[in-house]
Amino acid sequence: MVSVLVLHGPNINLLGSREPEIYGSLTLEEINLQLVDLGQQLGMEVHTAQYNSEGALVDALHAARTWAAGVVFNPGGYTHTSVVLRDAVAAIGIPVVEVHLSNVHSREEFRRYSYIAPVCVGSISGFGIQSYLLGLRALLAIITG
Amino acid sequence: MVSVLVLHGPNINLLGSREPEIYGSLTLEEINLQLVDLGQQLGMEVHTAQYNSEGALVDALHAARTWAAGVVFNPGGYTHTSVVLRDAVAAIGIPVVEVHLSNVHSREEFRRYSYIAPVCVGSISGFGIQSYLLGLRALLAIITG
Amino acid sequence: MVSVLVLHGPNINLLGSREPEIYGSLTLEEINLQLVDLGQQLGMEVHTAQYNSEGALVDALHAARTWAAGVVFNPGGYTHTSVVLRDAVAAIGIPVVEVHLSNVHSREEFRRYSYIAPVCVGSISGFGIQSYLLGLRALLAIITG
Amino acid sequence: MVSVLVLHGPNINLLGSREPEIYGSLTLEEINLQLVDLGQQLGMEVHTAQYNSEGALVDALHAARTWAAGVVFNPGGYTHTSVVLRDAVAAIGIPVVEVHLSNVHSREEFRRYSYIAPVCVGSISGFGIQSYLLGLRALLAIITG
Amino acid sequence: MVSVLVLHGPNINLLGSREPEIYGSLTLEEINLQLVDLGQQLGMEVHTAQYNSEGALVDALHAARTWAAGVVFNPGGYTHTSVVLRDAVAAIGIPVVEVHLSNVHSREEFRRYSYIAPVCVGSISGFGIQSYLLGLRALLAIITG
Amino acid sequence: MVSVLVLHGPNINLLGSREPEIYGSLTLEEINLQLVDLGQQLGMEVHTAQYNSEGALVDALHAARTWAAGVVFNPGGYTHTSVVLRDAVAAIGIPVVEVHLSNVHSREEFRRYSYIAPVCVGSISGFGIQSYLLGLRALLAIITG
Amino acid sequence: MVSVLVLHGPNINLLGSREPEIYGSLTLEEINLQLVDLGQQLGMEVHTAQYNSEGALVDALHAARTWAAGVVFNPGGYTHTSVVLRDAVAAIGIPVVEVHLSNVHSREEFRRYSYIAPVCVGSISGFGIQSYLLGLRALLAIITG
Amino acid sequence: MVSVLVLHGPNINLLGSREPEIYGSLTLEEINLQLVDLGQQLGMEVHTAQYNSEGALVDALHAARTWAAGVVFNPGGYTHTSVVLRDAVAAIGIPVVEVHLSNVHSREEFRRYSYIAPVCVGSISGFGIQSYLLGLRALLAIITG
Amino acid sequence: MVSVLVLHGPNINLLGSREPEIYGSLTLEEINLQLVDLGQQLGMEVHTAQYNSEGALVDALHAARTWAAGVVFNPGGYTHTSVVLRDAVAAIGIPVVEVHLSNVHSREEFRRYSYIAPVCVGSISGFGIQSYLLGLRALLAIITG
Amino acid sequence: MVSVLVLHGPNINLLGSREPEIYGSLTLEEINLQLVDLGQQLGMEVHTAQYNSEGALVDALHAARTWAAGVVFNPGGYTHTSVVLRDAVAAIGIPVVEVHLSNVHSREEFRRYSYIAPVCVGSISGFGIQSYLLGLRALLAIITG
Amino acid sequence: MVSVLVLHGPNINLLGSREPEIYGSLTLEEINLQLVDLGQQLGMEVHTAQYNSEGALVDALHAARTWAAGVVFNPGGYTHTSVVLRDAVAAIGIPVVEVHLSNVHSREEFRRYSYIAPVCVGSISGFGIQSYLLGLRALLAIITG
Amino acid sequence: MVSVLVLHGPNINLLGSREPEIYGSLTLEEINLQLVDLGQQLGMEVHTAQYNSEGALVDALHAARTWAAGVVFNPGGYTHTSVVLRDAVAAIGIPVVEVHLSNVHSREEFRRYSYIAPVCVGSISGFGIQSYLLGLRALLAIITG
Repeated sequence: MVSVLVLHGPNINLLGSREPEIYGSLTLEEINLQLVDLGQQLGMEVHTAQYNSEGALVDALHAARTWAAGVVFNPGGYTHTSVVLRDAVAAIGIPVVEVHLSNVHSREEFRRYSYIAPVCVGSISGFGIQSYLLGLRALLAIITG
Repeated sequence: MVSVLVLHGPNINLLGSREPEIYGSLTLEEINLQLVDLGQQLGMEVHTAQYNSEGALVDALHAARTWAAGVVFNPGGYTHTSVVLRDAVAAIGIPVVEVHLSNVHSREEFRRYSYIAPVCVGSISGFGIQSYLLGLRALLAIITG
Repeated sequence: MVSVLVLHGPNINLLGSREPEIYGSLTLEEINLQLVDLGQQLGMEVHTAQYNSEGALVDALHAARTWAAGVVFNPGGYTHTSVVLRDAVAAIGIPVVEVHLSNVHSREEFRRYSYIAPVCVGSISGFGIQSYLLGLRALLAIITG
Repeated sequence: MVSVLVLHGPNINLLGSREPEIYGSLTLEEINLQLVDLGQQLGMEVHTAQYNSEGALVDALHAARTWAAGVVFNPGGYTHTSVVLRDAVAAIGIPVVEVHLSNVHSREEFRRYSYIAPVCVGSISGFGIQSYLLGLRALLAIITG
Repeated sequence: MVSVLVLHGPNINLLGSREPEIYGSLTLEEINLQLVDLGQQLGMEVHTAQYNSEGALVDALHAARTWAAGVVFNPGGYTHTSVVLRDAVAAIGIPVVEVHLSNVHSREEFRRYSYIAPVCVGSISGFGIQSYLLGLRALLAIITG
Repeated sequence: MVSVLVLHGPNINLLGSREPEIYGSLTLEEINLQLVDLGQQLGMEVHTAQYNSEGALVDALHAARTWAAGVVFNPGGYTHTSVVLRDAVAAIGIPVVEVHLSNVHSREEFRRYSYIAPVCVGSISGFGIQSYLLGLRALLAIITG
Repeated sequence: MVSVLVLHGPNINLLGSREPEIYGSLTLEEINLQLVDLGQQLGMEVHTAQYNSEGALVDALHAARTWAAGVVFNPGGYTHTSVVLRDAVAAIGIPVVEVHLSNVHSREEFRRYSYIAPVCVGSISGFGIQSYLLGLRALLAIITG
Repeated sequence: MVSVLVLHGPNINLLGSREPEIYGSLTLEEINLQLVDLGQQLGMEVHTAQYNSEGALVDALHAARTWAAGVVFNPGGYTHTSVVLRDAVAAIGIPVVEVHLSNVHSREEFRRYSYIAPVCVGSISGFGIQSYLLGLRALLAIITG
Repeated sequence: MVSVLVLHGPNINLLGSREPEIYGSLTLEEINLQLVDLGQQLGMEVHTAQYNSEGALVDALHAARTWAAGVVFNPGGYTHTSVVLRDAVAAIGIPVVEVHLSNVHSREEFRRYSYIAPVCVGSISGFGIQSYLLGLRALLAIITG
Repeated sequence: MVSVLVLHGPNINLLGSREPEIYGSLTLEEINLQLVDLGQQLGMEVHTAQYNSEGALVDALHAARTWAAGVVFNPGGYTHTSVVLRDAVAAIGIPVVEVHLSNVHSREEFRRYSYIAPVCVGSISGFGIQSYLLGLRALLAIITG
Repeated sequence: MVSVLVLHGPNINLLGSREPEIYGSLTLEEINLQLVDLGQQLGMEVHTAQYNSEGALVDALHAARTWAAGVVFNPGGYTHTSVVLRDAVAAIGIPVVEVHLSNVHSREEFRRYSYIAPVCVGSISGFGIQSYLLGLRALLAIITG
Repeated sequence: MVSVLVLHGPNINLLGSREPEIYGSLTLEEINLQLVDLGQQLGMEVHTAQYNSEGALVDALHAARTWAAGVVFNPGGYTHTSVVLRDAVAAIGIPVVEVHLSNVHSREEFRRYSYIAPVCVGSISGFGIQSYLLGLRALLAIITG
């Protein structure tokens, strides 16, 4: 059974209470449960983690290349500012799918540019928790080629 | 049974022969078959259309609001240049999901900006035919709330 | 009696139902009726047309130079992207007045730049149907010198 | 009978002698006469004023909110540089119509951006004195709703 | 007893009636009273003035260097456009504190750049009348070293 | 005998009457005659077509790959705005030569950037009808390698 | 008694020894003592913390919303680069006041843009330790309405 | 005997005391005396004026066209921001020479762009009072052709 | 018999050995031979020269106006940086045709802007040696009108 | 014997396996061994450390000023985004040499700008492990003056 | 008697024949004669030189520091592109006055930026030969302090 | 024994006297002696040359490919402006190391961009003569691979 990482970036631990008109009312735990659940249906073992620190996210990506077949990654606010996470994604050599809860294209101008997307397989944004669930499906399709 | 439109933009009629290293080797007909097929599994009647003309795409979007519950839309090269299609998407009042076969973020700089995405529900790019299939799932999730 | 063309660009056929908080609740037919009506009061024969396609708008402008004394033109979303329509306006050698229903200056940044305005006699925006009616008066003043 | 202000900005006192190939040969007095005249036809009492000083224009706008139903305003060169006049227009809470004698879109690049237009109801440019006369009609339409 | 100038820029005379959702409902007179009052508590003689004209503000700054130990200055809309006021602040050789009622950073893009701030001691924005009161305290701290 | 397409873009049907000081006084028919003529001298069968619509130009390029050995293409105003035509040229896999009647580098700034040129073999501009005739020679040299 | 957080960003632990001509000669401990002291005078319990890590600052902001009525925040160099801290400030739903020791407007160009300021109540910069003390007063005024 | 205006812009009344390391230690009166003196040697009647207000400078330029053969103009900080003064210079139809005491090219970036220079005959900067004296000579050369 | 100059810019002396995948494998001597040869066929006496120095190219252009009817000019890397060569081309008053071996539009961004092209009759790029040969034909067409 | 720090930034722990075509096949341990070795030859005690976290790198720099005579620093992806590390380098008052394994100038555009370099003594990039070894020599030269 | 260099940059050798509507009809020889003449009146020995090559101009500036008290320098087209000449002017340690025949501010946008001006004492442009003569006077004033 | 070229660009002949606070007090001769000396220690025959002319530098690079194993190149001010030197470096097919005496990143903004660096192996700046000496070591490492 294939193992994958779903990696949540900064501030996502506040989901449910943080600006629900933008990010929805589900909590991170509820999202993780649904991801594990869908993983089981699709035959994937889904591991989840959340970090607010750029360095911790880098560490998690580095570690993933030793045990995971791929990553669904929501880089949060680091999407728009982090060359370091871009380099980490490019370095680990396993497929990474970028996901965002909100439609980053309809918010502030600076949210339209992603340092991470060019080194990912693809990107999904705007569908709330569905962004993650679709990301998991996309990752499966890539892994099973 | 809910009806939806999958609308393909310019040059997509050449799929399979056009730059396969970027766009893959499936033909448009094969993609449409898979979309209709997935639609049936999910309980959606999928109608497909392809146009090279900006005006014809506007007409198809206008018409869709009278019979479709939503649209999966690949605007192709118009993504980066068409205010008119943006206005059409904003005008029709049904949910539209933007999809792209290739990862637009890892190509020329001018492909990173989308006029269409801000008025769509969300955007999916980089997964080849999976971009469409995931887009259909996303649309269903939106329609069924 | 002088003949003029009032040429409506893309998406204007949806007027009345499309985003009424921006574009008002009058339909295109009602606007055309008022234009013909005002034309009769001012001694002008007003012909109207609407196209979603850039090419069709070019054709209409080309044709106008053989029968019309001038054009009131709402280029819609093409205003901000079309060098081709700019060239067509410059090519036909009859006066063209640019009009917009909404105040293009108070919306998205990209709506502030017009490719068309520099080759028109002048521009009117923000007054709803009045933009057209004032545009007709402006055109008459130009034609009658 | 409704009272309105037609407010002329800097350098407009030179009209008639100043660069007539751009601004026409009518003097400011002649324009004012035509404006008062059209006002009478339309049932409006038209007051006119002209100032070269930004501060004096601000004062005139401030005063207008106590006696005028709206303003036709040609901000001249301040159009492109004055946040202060923009703030004044936004502050007074009565409708303001921006007008320009020349087609600001076909001149120097810096004349294409207006700080004032986004806080006005709409904008008219390029028709010489007709810009003012159409502006008066536009204002009447707004006031009478 | 030290004397200081609190100098209000353009449109601030309208406070209380002007866009209260941005600027609050206090009038300029009420603000001035509170400033004089706080001045007395802190041992400062507070003089206040308000001008809409850039030139008048320059004159007031020039005059201040002969009698005031420092200035609390709200340049209003001139903040973003006036090299002349910047030069005046730099020229007078007494400390100037820039204050703004609203949070200039959360409004239009053009309000984020201040010509004045680089030649002031510091800048305070976003706290309504508190911006002025804190500015007065800041000035006192600077003057008394 | 090799067959090639000479494809004329928007507004070129007006040649001869449209701004002759920029575009010269030859009509499109006369240009086509000279192209066919030169083709015969060089052993090429020259087919010509002109469209104002972006979509029609795309269709013509798509069709050409089934019968033509190459294309001489004057994209007109679409040169500077059309990602769609760029994609079509890149997709068809036969050599395309970009030509322009006028010197696009000595006109408005926006005419200096071509979306089409980077995916063509090369580009020729500024020589009036000679741009086309030289383009035909260039195409022959490429085809015959 | 109301509790508030004064949160110091990166490099501020070096205060007193670090570039004293820019940042002054007070140490962080001395600043904290004065803050606690002023807090006591004003009836506020002031807690202070300093972190060099972006993630640790995010954690501190997240935690604050469970016990603090507001935050005085000096984001240091993260001011100009961190979308993540901006998102954290926006997410926690308690008032945050941005403060800077130095006048960020009179230093390098890149220090003039703050990602944080638009989601704070307001901003104070340039007054050395007074920036903090004034920030505490501003926060009290906001909390007590 | 030819009459000319030497027009000093904002803050120049402080000369001698204002930032002498940039602007020198001569007062405005001393400069005016030298200008009148040189005027007499060259057979010119030199009138001088200084205003801090943009509107007053416009008025002075307007008035000059009725009595002066040309203007030596130091627009001070308005150089970089005033379209209105540019329009005034262009409107009056007599030769204007732009002068600056300091070398505007070696100071802040925003001082390198002049709205005024393009409509003047020429520009002289960086030579202190000599900029004025050379400007007077330049004006004489232009007037006497 | 008409005499023309074919002027080669910097680094072109290395042709054949320099990056052949971009510039082809012909040497400069072989290109010159073909140019002289085509010249003879067309009735032109072709003189060729190559310089690496900007100044020497200026001198050659200056000299050409005394003996040549026109110039085919490949400015090489100076194309994108030299105002001086632009001025020289504009100064000499004989027609100049810009040519490039490679397609400058499909290389680095900085190669897309030419200082020289706007003052030439026209420009040809991307056809290898054919760029020169077509340039010679273009020049002949211009000279013989 | 002088002690120095060689500080490795994010992702450098993956050296040897990470994109070897860009970064080479040496591991971080091998690089560190060579650095210690060269240090011994040159009479320097070389300490090495690597962190993925921006905050940890700041801490290491802060600590270094108490025991190290200088730093050889490869900031990795933080080079292009971190004002915080720039501030830390500027704050510690010991010489810092910036090094990069790859030639940052020949990669993505965003890698050409370094926030760190301006506050370092100098910068070395493109020579693989030699960048570090040369950096150590440079540091020694600076320390021994 | 003080010796000075008047150094003419590229294309100035063509004066009189080159675009006389911009540069006037005087030849370089005539200008030099007037400069020598004015020099004699003012007690200066004027040496003149003209070079088209950037390197030769650098050499001339280097040499000047051994024999000349200052330089009047017209860098021609190098003004806008040459860091090398800027460095040479900064390096030689004698005063340099930048002069231009034409008003560089009223021509193409790229002529408005000068690399040379910031390291000169001052700049004079737009007065034809008078620019040189005034430049000589300015230089004398600087030399004689 | 391997031969290499150390090529000095413009203004470097003035070293020792030119702005010693930026460039140090060593003369070019002293630098060359140390380079030859270090070359001998490392087993390299070091040839040195210095030119102020861009063309002469191109010639020297061209010549070097026939006799040198590599080049240490200080392009001076041409670094930031010369596409021609970039092309020459790319054309010669031997390794080139870019060096700068000063830290180009901490000076004017325009010195931060290098046209040359992307086609060099690597770049070293900021270490005075050490930049050259380290460059020689880097070159040796590359040559001996």
